[in-house]
Amino acid sequence: MKWGPTWANTLPLRILFVTTPEGKARLTPHLQPGNVAKATAAPVNAILAVDNTFHHHIPRLLPFRPEMRDALEDDPVLRDRIGTGSAWLQAAYFIIAIRAAGLAAGPMGGFSPEGLDAEFFPADDWHSILVVNIGHPGENPWMDRLPRLDYQEAVRHA
Amino acid sequence: MKWGPTWANTLPLRILFVTTPEGKARLTPHLQPGNVAKATAAPVNAILAVDNTFHHHIPRLLPFRPEMRDALEDDPVLRDRIGTGSAWLQAAYFIIAIRAAGLAAGPMGGFSPEGLDAEFFPADDWHSILVVNIGHPGENPWMDRLPRLDYQEAVRHA
Repeated sequence: MKWGPTWANTLPLRILFVTTPEGKARLTPHLQPGNVAKATAAPVNAILAVDNTFHHHIPRLLPFRPEMRDALEDDPVLRDRIGTGSAWLQAAYFIIAIRAAGLAAGPMGGFSPEGLDAEFFPADDWHSILVVNIGHPGENPWMDRLPRLDYQEAVRHA
Repeated sequence: MKWGPTWANTLPLRILFVTTPEGKARLTPHLQPGNVAKATAAPVNAILAVDNTFHHHIPRLLPFRPEMRDALEDDPVLRDRIGTGSAWLQAAYFIIAIRAAGLAAGPMGGFSPEGLDAEFFPADDWHSILVVNIGHPGENPWMDRLPRLDYQEAVRHA
């Protein structure tokens, strides 16, 4: 999680761990109805978010190119491309790290990003992208594998 | 790579492997100048892309909710959120899978997505998000770790 690569080492992902009953009561109204029961049952919910001001850290995180901070300040399109893409890469590292530790990680996309952001990030600094339920696997927790695409459907050569 | 989770098992990532001199000659003009030498030196370049029509496969990939295909056909905002996010998750699985196999995987964001798409995906079906250089590590290939954020900078609790 900590060492997975991101674009220019920008590390834009942020994590809000929801562990209290009060936190869950704020979270669940913004989930799709089908996700409420499993989110409530999980001991921990992680709200993964992109930090809109991630580029402010660039002079420290990428010390040989500090000028990239100002370049991204002036280029919101590239900033969003870097921030969103790298945050999703880190979301995958997060899921894999939790599972590698022997815990269950259940990612859920079915929620209102606007609702979560207004509830948890009123300063408009972080934008939620994914909620991950975390806990020990329950009894018979795994469903059968769903189908995958064939190689020829997903891969080309040039 | 094949089994990592995606939103509703949509599996929107596609891969174009560039392995021929002709393919590299089409690739490198669209890279930032600083990325050309390393892309040329790598035996394989993988162009990772989102399939704009990924939702067409939903009746097969998510057989208990085939109606999601039409729901996403009518909702381009949600379709983009699902497609882009899940493709980036799969990009991380791809990087980790290559490294787990003992090869070097060097992801590069510095390229023109519009240029690559026009060159390799003129049918406008795939949209490039990342280029990954793949090969055996060279001599002294690793630079020192760059700094990371502190825990308090990246994590909150509720």
